[in-house]
Amino acid sequence: MDKRNTQGEAPGDLAGLGEDRIIELFSGGTVRPPVITAIGDDCAVIGPYEGLVFLWTADMLIEGVHFIRSEIPPEDLGYKSLCVNLSDIAAMGGEPLAALISLSLPKDLPSEWIERFRDGVFDAGEKYHCQIAGGDTCGSRNSAAVSITVLGKAVEQEVLRRSGTHTNDDIWLSGRAGLSALGLELLNRNISNDGATGAFSCHFRPEPQLELGRFLAENRLASSCIDTSDGLVIDLGRICRINNCSATIFEKQLPIVEEARSFDLDPIELALHGGEDYQLLFTAEPGDRARLEKNDTIQRIGSIEEGTMGITLIRKSGEEETIVPRGFSHF
Amino acid sequence: MDKRNTQGEAPGDLAGLGEDRIIELFSGGTVRPPVITAIGDDCAVIGPYEGLVFLWTADMLIEGVHFIRSEIPPEDLGYKSLCVNLSDIAAMGGEPLAALISLSLPKDLPSEWIERFRDGVFDAGEKYHCQIAGGDTCGSRNSAAVSITVLGKAVEQEVLRRSGTHTNDDIWLSGRAGLSALGLELLNRNISNDGATGAFSCHFRPEPQLELGRFLAENRLASSCIDTSDGLVIDLGRICRINNCSATIFEKQLPIVEEARSFDLDPIELALHGGEDYQLLFTAEPGDRARLEKNDTIQRIGSIEEGTMGITLIRKSGEEETIVPRGFSHF
Repeated sequence: MDKRNTQGEAPGDLAGLGEDRIIELFSGGTVRPPVITAIGDDCAVIGPYEGLVFLWTADMLIEGVHFIRSEIPPEDLGYKSLCVNLSDIAAMGGEPLAALISLSLPKDLPSEWIERFRDGVFDAGEKYHCQIAGGDTCGSRNSAAVSITVLGKAVEQEVLRRSGTHTNDDIWLSGRAGLSALGLELLNRNISNDGATGAFSCHFRPEPQLELGRFLAENRLASSCIDTSDGLVIDLGRICRINNCSATIFEKQLPIVEEARSFDLDPIELALHGGEDYQLLFTAEPGDRARLEKNDTIQRIGSIEEGTMGITLIRKSGEEETIVPRGFSHF
Repeated sequence: MDKRNTQGEAPGDLAGLGEDRIIELFSGGTVRPPVITAIGDDCAVIGPYEGLVFLWTADMLIEGVHFIRSEIPPEDLGYKSLCVNLSDIAAMGGEPLAALISLSLPKDLPSEWIERFRDGVFDAGEKYHCQIAGGDTCGSRNSAAVSITVLGKAVEQEVLRRSGTHTNDDIWLSGRAGLSALGLELLNRNISNDGATGAFSCHFRPEPQLELGRFLAENRLASSCIDTSDGLVIDLGRICRINNCSATIFEKQLPIVEEARSFDLDPIELALHGGEDYQLLFTAEPGDRARLEKNDTIQRIGSIEEGTMGITLIRKSGEEETIVPRGFSHF
């Protein structure tokens, strides 16, 4: 929740290097069996074994960066920590198997805190059929860190990937865009009533779209897929970059959180740039439109275009606007 | 390297709860397929698939707790971070497949640091045939955290476990006990010459005993096995607790680092209580003694006894001494 920007840092430090370049540093090696996909998708893909592949992901939540300990109930933090990992499994059309939970905790943390955190992890694990299979616990100097890794499985031919979309494919999005960001904004303003928007619940307890992911995978309905963790524009930008394409999205089709206006917030801004929704953003052939429209958890928000012009927003007025990513940057 | 003790903490905090109880908190759920083993061994075991099982482990290294950034070259930290995970795969007789690297880093870290860290990770990955298959990178408030998870494989019937030992089994240990702790002691005293003991190399670049683990597994030579990460007495204590047995070890058979005496250190103390050796501690039937004695990387140090009296050290004088664990405690 610490929205740090990259300006003002020396060029030789990580802020100058940037997150994407850091990830690139680790993607030098050749991919050899049984690793099928390494860096660059929501999960690593390992296999196949008996026609199955394993989806494998890891995500850290750091105190002071991803959460402020006094602001998030420990059970919600536990729930969320597991769910952000499960969201990566959902984005590839998989089914979770098990998780390892690693914790680095200050030793003066009340033991009640860890029990409540555990309850939240177990709640999410039970709800989404993901066993807790182990982990690691160690001390920390002052702040808590949660690092979770999840293993899931999928049928090899059904795996959803970030790559694979074509020009004229529709762009679809599940859920309400910007709902988690609204929750964060209200928290930052010390507003404790989210006006029945579900913003706090979305922010503290995001629900991984495993059912939707499985539906898309089993029915081969998505030509590409990613979960929205860093913001719609950033994550759609990733799809565009990998597929060498552009995207157009329509303001009037965005599933925005209208109620944000009553808090003096722009729901379009939240929808485009707000992070942590953990919804599925996917592309599909226009021929599948009728079939997908029957699913009322998803909304067709735009289409894939030729070229590498980035992301264009068509305003309700008909005006076209190039949208520059500005979600959360870690460095 | 921050040797914190548990005294002086309030009873309701993590220091009062203790590491083992924290781990227990997460081991409540039932284990169901495909998870075969959850919490309580060096790795979780998942499978079987085509007669194979997957070994899965995660370990965090936290700045100020596991390492002091100014004291360990980044390439060594990268190397060590992967190797401590590979050591868990070794302890179960497996072969590594791939690793995910999660990093939480302060943004003012020089970019050279991350490049050198990466080089160390890749060095270890190449040496031990473990691909880097992905990960996660995020900012941190001030200190760095490294969280690595490794997936390995093993033949289902060959997996080495902490459980399975019997009364009168021999206790064996690879390598030199206390060598890493000697390195740490010298560092703490600002001594930069380890007297050709190999102590610094052992401390900064521990080598996972994958070959030995595979040898023991393939030949079904170990009735139980663990890696020595927290100290010989603590880790042997874990074997005793799981198997409801006691252990006797012989001072004269301990593969101690004699050279420690020239630094005014007691090599027996280092061998019993020093952590981070990442050697294999295993038990085997006395009938296999002749075969195991041919391997000069291991030493028979004692035997498993009936009862739950803990660990007894037979001094060279013949005197018996009960050894109380006092390795590193995180809380």
